Amino acid sequence: MSRALDFILAARRSEIQGLQQLDATCELVAKVSQLVHTLQRERGYSNIHLGSPDDQCQDALDALTAQSKLAESVLLDGFEQPDLNRACAAEKVRLFNHIAAVLHGLEGLVRLRAAVRRRTLSAEESTAAFSRPIAALLAVVFEAADTASDPKVTRCLVALFNMMQGKELAGQERATGVAGFINGWFSPVLIQRLHFLGESQQRCFETFVDFSTPEALLAWKALAAEPWQTEIEQLRLVAMRSSEQQPIPASLHLPWFELTTTRIDAFKAIEDQLTLELRNQCHCSIAEASAELDNHRALLKRLGSMDSTAASPGTRLYNVQATELESVPGDAMGHQLNRSVLDLVHEQNQRLLALHDELAVVRTSLDERKWVERAKGLLMEQHKVNEPEAYRLLQQAAMSQGVRLLEVARTLINQEKGRPGR
Amino acid sequence: MSRALDFILAARRSEIQGLQQLDATCELVAKVSQLVHTLQRERGYSNIHLGSPDDQCQDALDALTAQSKLAESVLLDGFEQPDLNRACAAEKVRLFNHIAAVLHGLEGLVRLRAAVRRRTLSAEESTAAFSRPIAALLAVVFEAADTASDPKVTRCLVALFNMMQGKELAGQERATGVAGFINGWFSPVLIQRLHFLGESQQRCFETFVDFSTPEALLAWKALAAEPWQTEIEQLRLVAMRSSEQQPIPASLHLPWFELTTTRIDAFKAIEDQLTLELRNQCHCSIAEASAELDNHRALLKRLGSMDSTAASPGTRLYNVQATELESVPGDAMGHQLNRSVLDLVHEQNQRLLALHDELAVVRTSLDERKWVERAKGLLMEQHKVNEPEAYRLLQQAAMSQGVRLLEVARTLINQEKGRPGR
Repeated sequence: MSRALDFILAARRSEIQGLQQLDATCELVAKVSQLVHTLQRERGYSNIHLGSPDDQCQDALDALTAQSKLAESVLLDGFEQPDLNRACAAEKVRLFNHIAAVLHGLEGLVRLRAAVRRRTLSAEESTAAFSRPIAALLAVVFEAADTASDPKVTRCLVALFNMMQGKELAGQERATGVAGFINGWFSPVLIQRLHFLGESQQRCFETFVDFSTPEALLAWKALAAEPWQTEIEQLRLVAMRSSEQQPIPASLHLPWFELTTTRIDAFKAIEDQLTLELRNQCHCSIAEASAELDNHRALLKRLGSMDSTAASPGTRLYNVQATELESVPGDAMGHQLNRSVLDLVHEQNQRLLALHDELAVVRTSLDERKWVERAKGLLMEQHKVNEPEAYRLLQQAAMSQGVRLLEVARTLINQEKGRPGR
Repeated sequence: MSRALDFILAARRSEIQGLQQLDATCELVAKVSQLVHTLQRERGYSNIHLGSPDDQCQDALDALTAQSKLAESVLLDGFEQPDLNRACAAEKVRLFNHIAAVLHGLEGLVRLRAAVRRRTLSAEESTAAFSRPIAALLAVVFEAADTASDPKVTRCLVALFNMMQGKELAGQERATGVAGFINGWFSPVLIQRLHFLGESQQRCFETFVDFSTPEALLAWKALAAEPWQTEIEQLRLVAMRSSEQQPIPASLHLPWFELTTTRIDAFKAIEDQLTLELRNQCHCSIAEASAELDNHRALLKRLGSMDSTAASPGTRLYNVQATELESVPGDAMGHQLNRSVLDLVHEQNQRLLALHDELAVVRTSLDERKWVERAKGLLMEQHKVNEPEAYRLLQQAAMSQGVRLLEVARTLINQEKGRPGR
């Protein structure tokens, strides 16, 4: 049997191995989704505690903290120890770095929780502090989407990431709202923040719709008819119209928290459906690749046993490039084998090319996000503005130049890189 | 010590591991370069044998075959057995597939060599048959360049690939010339082929110049003054002006073979220099990354021993996002460690981002090549034309539309993918 065949089979086996690693990553992503969800609840409820005159909410808060800690320990058990022998070199570098940021963020929660209970920080500070480990957790999901090698799984991960990111913005909106309502009015900064969080959610959910599975999309569309949609919208309007001169009842924080929690839980249900489909997709892809590997093996075994049998007379030779050499008379078995090896190599190459193209298309939305995030960071640093203002600057530039947001962001970053002294 | 630190160090170790794998790939590339060179010689000389009335060249041909076989066995020893445990999953899939094509091509040489000695095929058929395994070998180098994760190494690999590809086209030109001179005149197809090979070499060497190291570039520029440049140019003109009605002396094949061999050997010397610099670059990058890892370790050890010492009073806290939480009074050591972990994660992220950007720029030239090659293949299939004609079609479309070749190629491929029934 030819050595070339060993490598054809090895290529297939490597592919299966890659899919198995992807499956493990998707399992990790499901755990990340769970921890993000409990942290979001804890963040929202921490603001209720911070705004309370007494400690009557503390038991409920402690219960939420316990849930977070449970989800955290489940996730930490899932992080394989960084093991040199199993680690897959270069492609894990960014993932490991993101995990380091997550672990660091989680370690900081101990002090944060104590500070919340002692009420030694403001609701805004608490919201920002809880949001950091959540952002690090989302970065792990983004990284998973960005490095997945199966287009169908990547699509699913892109949909999931955008649902998670949209849900996180909804969670920040919940926490911001709780702080504002308890305060009795929303400052211009809080109102700007609510606007920004609303628009940003919109964009995330649009991308989710573009990449979602049919089932998750159906569940998403069903949400439009939910009564809490209009009730939340009404509370948003109340919040936005409030001011120091026109205060609103502080008690509104309770329906706000409940309604937005219902909304966020509905998003979580869609997330759960997506993580389930994600794993299914991984298993389907693995099964398909394994079946192909078995096919290859069977074909090659059949070819191996042809030493003693005559080739069928109708055998057509496969030509990579048109040349008569391939049809120089020789042993029929040799030719049959020849044909099959080239067929397989050619077929695999075409398939890998098609996969590569598909992946490139799906990753476009991730690339766009990367450029926009970087440009926002740059503007925040250069102009000493907050995130909503930085985003507004980008939007304005895109509108006035009549180009896409992505183009403005890319140009900005590239100009910055081209500047002397950098 | 924090678990986050484990992952920061693991990220660095993974990076080093990736560079070591890259170094092994570069060692493989050096062996590929050697085998390609001997096969090119054998291909050129095979045409001399095929054009000879007797077997007086056969000893020289046998010597060249022996050299090829030696280079082949050196390379085959270098191909690690496709080993499931060491194989690094998805990223090896394409490489393994290309190696399968190489092995298959090399296995076909046995019959080819016998056919050359029996003179049962034409010079053109022999040239085409030798060119196939060489193309497969070059695909391995292309793949190496396309998957290298270090921008400096990638630059070097892009320069090397283009030098190798240009040299291969020079080798095909040598073989085509030998066939034409021995025949006594060049058919229109052969003349078209010479034109195409000349232009294609030009493009490869331009890209080589763009990405070359300073040393290799210097060596390249020195070639301009070589006397064989003008002598080869004269013989090219003689070839192109010949026709069935205006034959030329068949003996010209000897100076043509010698001069073009001198030229190709000069290219090989530059290739050797590049492969040497390539390995050096790998070793430098590994040494740099290892020194960084040691730095990290030393820093973290120092931090670990700070439990018993007071932090310096001037310690500034590192803020990821502006919030006062980080400065909540606490143990000084905790803060110092905090700062360093975030510093390291942030620093690594910035560095990985910069590497990613650099890589994207260097890979542009590879992408361009991929699209143009695919478009050429598509046109050859659709219009039943040969490679030079397909390339001409692309060039004409680019000129008439006033866009770059890459754009024409990309549009063509995307249109084809969008067609029904595919």
